[in-house]
Amino acid sequence: MEQVQGGVCAPEGFQAAGAYGGVRGTQTDKHDLALIVSETSCAAAAVYTTNKVKGAPLIVTKRHLEDGHARAIICNSGNANTCAPDGERIAEETCRLTAQALGLSSPDDVLVASTGVIGEKLTMAPFERGIPKLVAGLSPDGSAQAARGIMTTDTIPKEIAVRFTVDGTACTIGGIAKGSGMIHPNMATMLSFLTTDAAIAPALLQRVLSEDIQDTFNQVSVDGDTSTNDMVIVLANGLAGNPVIETEGETLDTFRAALHQVTAELAKKLAADGEGAGKLIQCRVQGAPAKQEARAIARSVVSSDLLKAAVFGEDANWGRVLCAIGYAPGEFSADHIDVVMRSKNGAVTVCRGSRYAEHSEEEAADILSADEIEIEIDMHSGGATAVAWGCDLTYDYVRINGDYRS
Amino acid sequence: MEQVQGGVCAPEGFQAAGAYGGVRGTQTDKHDLALIVSETSCAAAAVYTTNKVKGAPLIVTKRHLEDGHARAIICNSGNANTCAPDGERIAEETCRLTAQALGLSSPDDVLVASTGVIGEKLTMAPFERGIPKLVAGLSPDGSAQAARGIMTTDTIPKEIAVRFTVDGTACTIGGIAKGSGMIHPNMATMLSFLTTDAAIAPALLQRVLSEDIQDTFNQVSVDGDTSTNDMVIVLANGLAGNPVIETEGETLDTFRAALHQVTAELAKKLAADGEGAGKLIQCRVQGAPAKQEARAIARSVVSSDLLKAAVFGEDANWGRVLCAIGYAPGEFSADHIDVVMRSKNGAVTVCRGSRYAEHSEEEAADILSADEIEIEIDMHSGGATAVAWGCDLTYDYVRINGDYRS
Repeated sequence: MEQVQGGVCAPEGFQAAGAYGGVRGTQTDKHDLALIVSETSCAAAAVYTTNKVKGAPLIVTKRHLEDGHARAIICNSGNANTCAPDGERIAEETCRLTAQALGLSSPDDVLVASTGVIGEKLTMAPFERGIPKLVAGLSPDGSAQAARGIMTTDTIPKEIAVRFTVDGTACTIGGIAKGSGMIHPNMATMLSFLTTDAAIAPALLQRVLSEDIQDTFNQVSVDGDTSTNDMVIVLANGLAGNPVIETEGETLDTFRAALHQVTAELAKKLAADGEGAGKLIQCRVQGAPAKQEARAIARSVVSSDLLKAAVFGEDANWGRVLCAIGYAPGEFSADHIDVVMRSKNGAVTVCRGSRYAEHSEEEAADILSADEIEIEIDMHSGGATAVAWGCDLTYDYVRINGDYRS
Repeated sequence: MEQVQGGVCAPEGFQAAGAYGGVRGTQTDKHDLALIVSETSCAAAAVYTTNKVKGAPLIVTKRHLEDGHARAIICNSGNANTCAPDGERIAEETCRLTAQALGLSSPDDVLVASTGVIGEKLTMAPFERGIPKLVAGLSPDGSAQAARGIMTTDTIPKEIAVRFTVDGTACTIGGIAKGSGMIHPNMATMLSFLTTDAAIAPALLQRVLSEDIQDTFNQVSVDGDTSTNDMVIVLANGLAGNPVIETEGETLDTFRAALHQVTAELAKKLAADGEGAGKLIQCRVQGAPAKQEARAIARSVVSSDLLKAAVFGEDANWGRVLCAIGYAPGEFSADHIDVVMRSKNGAVTVCRGSRYAEHSEEEAADILSADEIEIEIDMHSGGATAVAWGCDLTYDYVRINGDYRS
């Protein structure tokens, strides 16, 4: 498996574009639209937020995915089209305009996503203005532009692609994502669009995606808020020419691993670019009694405001790690916990057997001064492992969310 | 029922004191010890953190409460005595020294609590230095000193007392509390000590306390972190002379209401003095399908970092209220929600039927410029109500928890 350039356009037969439609009004020319299109029909699958308040685009996308197939994804940033008047009609109309501009026979082949402010009316004007530009701009080099089009308070476009071989055929999976604030387990204000040229049955694609996000996107937390609009979509057009993956087995496992590499990398990028984030916090748990507990413990640690503020202050306050482990849901012993803090500057054991472990505060502070911090936890009570990603809590998080309606 | 002065010393037969023992070292003379003593034996009850990492004092207090009776509470701030070597021995020894200084026959009559940094060794020296001072300083006017002795990053001592009548007898309940950071449902780094001169059976006292905290202390959130050391203790010495409350009925309901007034007021004070807090946020939910959902929704709203930052920025970002309602656990419809924002500056309906309600942004910002904000939610799907208290998320929260090991 090797990493390749091109993001969502790295797989055969996909083009993408980003454009300005004016969702945020005309005082900015920031790209606010993105389009991804496959030249042939794709098996398609998606996962959605667990928030009981759901954006209109999710409802429409779910409807369009009932047949397990799609050709294109249209997305706007700047307005979530959630709790807003006429939301479903606007989302349907957006799909219809997109299908028309692409010459597709049915609006049902288009999936739609939105991200931005909740509760403000979204009009068709930005789409009427932007969709012709998107279609004209479609390009096999368009992934980065699309990644920009879906950004809200993100500071860096996020894309990745990997190449892998199934049944002797080279296949590719690519993806883009946006995140920033309102990011927490069970999806976040995060959107990710994945593409692959591997041939795979829709039901299997759905199963693999639903499983994968448990260990990737659902293990990211920026601020504990689970958004109304989160969605991950994967399109598989089969143009690589491999025999269609239709059953469990080694081939599916290879596909699984490739998908995981893409989603785990995007998850990490989302955490590192969390609102106001200065540092990526990666928490690895081992020795947990079961997978579910391992995930919950890792998530609890990266979600703790107190720990996040301590990492911002470069203070190896391991008591806050123990505290966050202790309130993770599930049944486990908290009596034999080891905690190591690690970065490119070194590693130090700060806690052993749930007690203080002799260490130099200066050395620990130096480790925490790096941009990427790993917190390694051994629960010594089983064999389950998990990883979660988060970021530090900074003055900028408060500024971004206090001074600015994002 | 009327509010009276005197805090934990307002009920008959209680004295209290605060003193400096040197828990934080000798570079500060901040009071770090508190003692509350009843002149006779009390029915006693307590509730503890749900964190699986538990401070040593909780274990010792639980043991001393097995017989349902106690005479005194000793508490230190500055060190949690959690995940620290010899924690239980130190906590037991503290009770022994206190009992000895008070001339009590058994250390089991003393309950112990600690709050502060996790994982640092607590020694006996501060207690050896401080307990004689505490005992010498015991006074019927000592409640405020005791309230100061248990403070960590709190900025204001918290105390209250109310007088009520049962069976024709005037009784009093008083309380002190400390909170600040690490405060979240299921107890917090919060400690509260309650006293009453009402006579009540220990088992009933425990039941009433356990029920009450579901609607008071467990409905406070400062930062989503549930601490290892939270505890609420109530001592009832019976010196008011009322017939012992031993069964359900009107008399117990009166006691319940008085207790609730004390704990609800302390809960509100805890939220208002959350770390870095500039504003108190009170969320009232009505029309929920069941009590549990009502509580969860109210808690979810006051716990949302995004909403807390918006309140700090005085931005009536009601979409974040809807979002936080939507990810509250439980089964409920999110389709008919009304949201009103209220303060001493007025009230404005910002959302009706889960959609934007026409309002002036300026008026809303003016309402949010007050120190106490009420967010009123009507779910329109049942008859259950609940209240929760939180505070805004400010630069100071990040500063306190980033720059300072609290």
